[in-house]
Amino acid sequence: MADFAPIDFEMMARALSLAGRGMYTAHPNPRVGCLLVREGRVIGEGWHRRTGEEHAEVNALADAGIAAEGSIAYVTLEPCSHHGRTPPCVDALVKAGVRQVFVAMNDPNPAVAGEGVAALRKAGIDVRVGLMAAEAESLNEGFKRRMTKRLPFVRLKIAASLDGATSMKSGESKWITGDESRQDVQKLRASSGAILSGVETVLMDDPALTVRGEFADNGGRQPIRVILDSRLRMPPTAKMLGLPGRTVVFCVDDSNRRALEGAGAIVVRVAEKGGRPDLVAVLHEIADMEVNDLLVEAGATLVGAFLMERRVDELVIYQAPHIMGSETHGIANTPDWLKLDQRFALRFTEASMIGRDLLVRARPAN
Amino acid sequence: MADFAPIDFEMMARALSLAGRGMYTAHPNPRVGCLLVREGRVIGEGWHRRTGEEHAEVNALADAGIAAEGSIAYVTLEPCSHHGRTPPCVDALVKAGVRQVFVAMNDPNPAVAGEGVAALRKAGIDVRVGLMAAEAESLNEGFKRRMTKRLPFVRLKIAASLDGATSMKSGESKWITGDESRQDVQKLRASSGAILSGVETVLMDDPALTVRGEFADNGGRQPIRVILDSRLRMPPTAKMLGLPGRTVVFCVDDSNRRALEGAGAIVVRVAEKGGRPDLVAVLHEIADMEVNDLLVEAGATLVGAFLMERRVDELVIYQAPHIMGSETHGIANTPDWLKLDQRFALRFTEASMIGRDLLVRARPAN
Repeated sequence: MADFAPIDFEMMARALSLAGRGMYTAHPNPRVGCLLVREGRVIGEGWHRRTGEEHAEVNALADAGIAAEGSIAYVTLEPCSHHGRTPPCVDALVKAGVRQVFVAMNDPNPAVAGEGVAALRKAGIDVRVGLMAAEAESLNEGFKRRMTKRLPFVRLKIAASLDGATSMKSGESKWITGDESRQDVQKLRASSGAILSGVETVLMDDPALTVRGEFADNGGRQPIRVILDSRLRMPPTAKMLGLPGRTVVFCVDDSNRRALEGAGAIVVRVAEKGGRPDLVAVLHEIADMEVNDLLVEAGATLVGAFLMERRVDELVIYQAPHIMGSETHGIANTPDWLKLDQRFALRFTEASMIGRDLLVRARPAN
Repeated sequence: MADFAPIDFEMMARALSLAGRGMYTAHPNPRVGCLLVREGRVIGEGWHRRTGEEHAEVNALADAGIAAEGSIAYVTLEPCSHHGRTPPCVDALVKAGVRQVFVAMNDPNPAVAGEGVAALRKAGIDVRVGLMAAEAESLNEGFKRRMTKRLPFVRLKIAASLDGATSMKSGESKWITGDESRQDVQKLRASSGAILSGVETVLMDDPALTVRGEFADNGGRQPIRVILDSRLRMPPTAKMLGLPGRTVVFCVDDSNRRALEGAGAIVVRVAEKGGRPDLVAVLHEIADMEVNDLLVEAGATLVGAFLMERRVDELVIYQAPHIMGSETHGIANTPDWLKLDQRFALRFTEASMIGRDLLVRARPAN
């Protein structure tokens, strides 16, 4: 890795901050920012807002105008050299006369990785790769996961009491976390390409699973709603089927598919595992729908299935400030875990207050 | 309340810091610190280490020597005016010629509250009360609780997984929290006058319930071990009976008391409630043993009883970084809580990392 100067870190940090503006809108594309600098001063800023719109580099070049000639570009992701929905950014950088390019990370798509850097170098531009690579990767974990593994990044959202309960055995159930936590869930949803739940939740709560409020994509897009429903028990009258955005229902027995399709659902039959949709098959299908980040908001059975199959990349737990005790349901049904060694080992990455609740983030220990 | 100058806050903060040195040794006395200041400079420091030893004021006066004359004293608790195990501090302050005394909080003992201040004033000393009173009270919550309510401050220690499990239903059980958490429990124990557990825990784990390591009182004292054992099933061979310090066993049926008493236990029969020792009666008895802070380290049944009776003043929860799932035992058996409204509502007061675990402190919401 090259040595980088303090000014380079400062400028790339600003480019990363620009990239972050695409947090809720850029997907399925990666979140990318670009800064153009000349004689130590920023002359152009750009970020990628939405698929089909300009890439970060093109926006930064437009912002800089003719001043871009002889400038240095800081780009959080390797510029593209291929024609996609927009022309190659490499061509634009070359044409504008940029003299040097700092790249935080290579394109994670193995089919094109390194091509953009090679094309820039071929055009005589000095390219330095790897500046703040870890920070850049954390912005686009889902994109990288999809490009390299044909899987989305799976984020499990849980709302529970401090002692891990979600509802009373008596059936009594209501929101147990506070307003601030529920608003925070809107951010999780907005940064996700899809939200997954189970048919039991649909039958019980008839949820919308949409993004509402300030984090909604003002382009009108909604995350894909994904429902696991082995035998298609979901009613065609389910609320979500009448809402903007797609609803995809995964089943293993699709004999009832007509009614749901008539109500607007996309029904996908996948391989079964123990009578239920095989989670890995489902995740591959979801990746094929260009979903980088999948948010799982499900009941104890489905949460347990994701945990038992070790298909969780991050847990986001909202802990409400109370003890609900023993006459309750827990967050995960894990009938296969009879030995302590089978537990899902984590490492905490965050613990902070959110309103009166505690927000805990954790990732698999290994 | 009087107005206080910045210098007064600075000096009282130092006195509070001195008081904190008695955290693990001062009980059953309160933790008290005293600073003597002359012309803006500290000329004497003192704190109370242990019952029967000098009070903070006397130690500070000894530290200052003849320079104490004309000085200002900052005392975290109202000086005593009565003869206890040591002579009255008021007399010592007057005799040394201290000209002004800042007192953080009055003595919480209603029988003597205000007497020390009155005696100082009668001797012509200017006394200001209430400087950093909240901080001073937080050092001696247990002492205040005992003096005003004949109850100890009840602190419930829990070690559980992130989803609130403590052991497997299969019976498999082992430490689930890390070394740092277990070391932190030694601090909780050392700052407590007694540690309470149930006979089930004794029968299952045969615990020592002693303070070990750096936080042990170097005067050799151990917290009182309190075991709730309705029908005296505790074996005379229990490990704790052979260890330094007292073991007190509360029962409702004392027909087996001889064997336990022969093994060194103090057996106390108390009123029953539902066939078990009445918790309030037990807590009054514990307060009468001069216990300010009671640490409850118990199994799910006893933890549930304390919660259901709302006899918990603080929860200290060590959350291990894993999900143990549904085939587990939880932290509290609460068979009476069938409705969500019965839950124990809390407010979080701390959330921090301790090793790889999460340490959460919470108090009753009201």
